Amino acid sequence: MPLYLEDFAPGQVRESPPRTLTKDEIVAFAREYDPQPFHTDEEAGKRSVFGGLIASGWQTVGIMMRLLWDTFLKDTASLGSPGCDEIRWLKPVRPGDTLRARFTITEVVPSRSKPDRGMVRTFTEILNQHGEIVMTVRGLGLFGRRP
Amino acid sequence: MPLYLEDFAPGQVRESPPRTLTKDEIVAFAREYDPQPFHTDEEAGKRSVFGGLIASGWQTVGIMMRLLWDTFLKDTASLGSPGCDEIRWLKPVRPGDTLRARFTITEVVPSRSKPDRGMVRTFTEILNQHGEIVMTVRGLGLFGRRP
Repeated sequence: MPLYLEDFAPGQVRESPPRTLTKDEIVAFAREYDPQPFHTDEEAGKRSVFGGLIASGWQTVGIMMRLLWDTFLKDTASLGSPGCDEIRWLKPVRPGDTLRARFTITEVVPSRSKPDRGMVRTFTEILNQHGEIVMTVRGLGLFGRRP
Repeated sequence: MPLYLEDFAPGQVRESPPRTLTKDEIVAFAREYDPQPFHTDEEAGKRSVFGGLIASGWQTVGIMMRLLWDTFLKDTASLGSPGCDEIRWLKPVRPGDTLRARFTITEVVPSRSKPDRGMVRTFTEILNQHGEIVMTVRGLGLFGRRP
């Protein structure tokens, strides 16, 4: 039985398992999607404002999505997402950092036009191994209602 | 000579080269970052609300970032980005679709606290080969000022 729209309520919090990001993963993602030198090259990173190689913020977002799936999205009647808001990269993510996600449900809104579904709004925080919040994002998700 | 903050002005528009997304690329990204079945499996896609395999919206964002780099970010005094707003996935991206990006500068704001830099706000549209807008996003970018 998947989780339906009715199973979500504001204030619910889910914590993800940890995920460590290696230097090789950082460089591989950056070469494909975000080849800014401080994402692809250690020496360029040292010379940059970041003082070392850092992960693309879009890779942190990708890891957030994967942790979302692994933590609870895989067990839901998800119908995809129309978008997200307010991505904020607050601190650099560096090779060897271990990330985890905290998902907080902020709003549950049944659709007025489509009675079989509704929208769930979430506030997501990504934390590193020091407990520092490295990224936040406000997400939107569509979910089926209980048949 | 890179492009500095002073080289940007509201209303400037840049168009990217095209980029075709293959089924293999869609599935590879999804297996790593967004394994929702309609992103990883053709048959599951057909049974979904999308009627076929579609790319993760986060991969479309990644391609946007790559097109941004290739189109003009590589030629600038970029200092990274604090975030972005209002990602909207408006239409599915399917295997074989050819995407391009249109970047419009909307605001240029010198920093009050750090005189060597400033913020550029952009509105980005991703279009497919039919001229349909498949995604929009409002980006923030930090750029160095002319020395």
